[in-house]
Amino acid sequence: MLNVKISGSGLYLPPKIESSEELAPLLKRSTDWIHQKSGVYERRISDIDVDEMGAIAGKEALDSGDKPDLIINASGVPKQTIPDTSTFFQKEMGFEGIPSFSIHCTCLSFIAAFHTASSLIQSQSYKRILIISSDRGTIGRNFDEPESASLLGDGAASVLLEPSSDQEGSQLLYHTMSTWPSGTNLTEVRGGGTKKHPLNPNTKREDNLFSMDGPAVYKIARKQVYRMLLRTLNETGLDKESIDWVIPHQASKKAVDAYSIVGGFRDKQVLETVSKFGNCVAASVPMTLVMAIKDRRIKRGDLVMLIGTGAGLSAACSLIRY
Amino acid sequence: MLNVKISGSGLYLPPKIESSEELAPLLKRSTDWIHQKSGVYERRISDIDVDEMGAIAGKEALDSGDKPDLIINASGVPKQTIPDTSTFFQKEMGFEGIPSFSIHCTCLSFIAAFHTASSLIQSQSYKRILIISSDRGTIGRNFDEPESASLLGDGAASVLLEPSSDQEGSQLLYHTMSTWPSGTNLTEVRGGGTKKHPLNPNTKREDNLFSMDGPAVYKIARKQVYRMLLRTLNETGLDKESIDWVIPHQASKKAVDAYSIVGGFRDKQVLETVSKFGNCVAASVPMTLVMAIKDRRIKRGDLVMLIGTGAGLSAACSLIRY
Repeated sequence: MLNVKISGSGLYLPPKIESSEELAPLLKRSTDWIHQKSGVYERRISDIDVDEMGAIAGKEALDSGDKPDLIINASGVPKQTIPDTSTFFQKEMGFEGIPSFSIHCTCLSFIAAFHTASSLIQSQSYKRILIISSDRGTIGRNFDEPESASLLGDGAASVLLEPSSDQEGSQLLYHTMSTWPSGTNLTEVRGGGTKKHPLNPNTKREDNLFSMDGPAVYKIARKQVYRMLLRTLNETGLDKESIDWVIPHQASKKAVDAYSIVGGFRDKQVLETVSKFGNCVAASVPMTLVMAIKDRRIKRGDLVMLIGTGAGLSAACSLIRY
Repeated sequence: MLNVKISGSGLYLPPKIESSEELAPLLKRSTDWIHQKSGVYERRISDIDVDEMGAIAGKEALDSGDKPDLIINASGVPKQTIPDTSTFFQKEMGFEGIPSFSIHCTCLSFIAAFHTASSLIQSQSYKRILIISSDRGTIGRNFDEPESASLLGDGAASVLLEPSSDQEGSQLLYHTMSTWPSGTNLTEVRGGGTKKHPLNPNTKREDNLFSMDGPAVYKIARKQVYRMLLRTLNETGLDKESIDWVIPHQASKKAVDAYSIVGGFRDKQVLETVSKFGNCVAASVPMTLVMAIKDRRIKRGDLVMLIGTGAGLSAACSLIRY
């Protein structure tokens, strides 16, 4: 139990919309095929890079208040190999001197960063941590792999974390994560590092693009995430009814729907953004969270579950009292 | 003050040695020029990739004891863009199910990860955290930039962190970090992400290689790191004499020597490995630490300072009671 509260939140939704009708010819598939396979009807395409996107969300989360004392980048794909993206966020926000680093576990980066930041606040290492997730997955779409290419979208979101008082009651109640390397090859961008270096003559074009075996991930994820869900409820002594909002990683419409169809939550408990914004990699969870904070569906005191899978293969679940 | 102890440590030094004599013709410089500019006489070149390197160090740190309950990758450059390298470490070590993620701030990744892991232990989130830094910087050498290319070497190191008891007295006494985005362009690998994507026709060959303006970094670093050093001593009420070992990031021989020449430490307090192993990016600090633990220079109760700069531009300093 870590005493933290989300004291600010910000969002960047790129204005340019790409409908599945527009995408269909690029994938050599019908619009219906895209709707059925991915459940994505439209996604945003960013004309600005991840640092600018994230800085817009970060500034909104700060809401012209004091500077943060730590900036954590929690994105799936970086702006460049070195330095890490956190310093570019800081640069775009016009700050100097704020410690900055990245936490990375692909689509679960935000959930892992939220837990880590909460621990850093609990240990009194920092008092005002800005977490930013910004992903531009559409750059890495492989049109020869229509299922994964139909999923990806661009977006950014940010939260500001501060210590909470006992009266406020805001908390990270529970966090759990597991990584199974047997699923490493199920979701990959093989290029960009030492294995398939851009200058390595053996690096193929598709090594630099996103690749996912969606059905295989779904099969493992459904079982493992359900176990994780039950463990979270068991460890916290809560039941499904008492969770106000379930915010799944927006891997696909099918993956989101599984929380109600298989997971036993009511439809209205489970927040869904994938049909309008696609799978925005690490930004999906905070984008969905921040949208529901902004339109006041999520209220102070609500119990919010962040849950999902990411490349690794990893699964994570956090339970937050907002 | 966080109550943690380094309960295990491991090292991987690739067996293949490249002397500066061998490197000189590739850089179109003399051996003496390399010795004078970088202070590196030889470096290791790895034939195995970062995951295998790191797993060897990680296994040694575990010393056939229990599995860790968290694996943190704290390296400068990943194996591939997705998934992050931590899952590949776990795969090579033969584990399944252990939560794994990466902390990245280039050369300071280990120092930031050590502090973060200490906080996660203090908040009772984890009890047995394996941190692995593994870098293969020689893959990213730009032979047209002889000064930075002469510096880089390959290596890996790992520590196991556990809670310490009051009797043991092992602690992270102090940690501080700052990032100045005005120095972002001083140390870069511009490729590998969204900005200079490998498939972007505007991405140039050198964008995928390491680039550093060493003299400019040194100029800023000398001033900022000295300030950080004084702040650390001031905040902890210690003087330079009471620090048993200073472990600088091995950026260059000049950067290491600055801790005695400018910083006012005695030569024998400052540990140097750059002349024999080069600048091993994020692995330099833990490699130097682990070598001194293994040969029993560092003893239980010793005060050890980890300090240095990294791309960002960032500086960090941690004070540990081993």
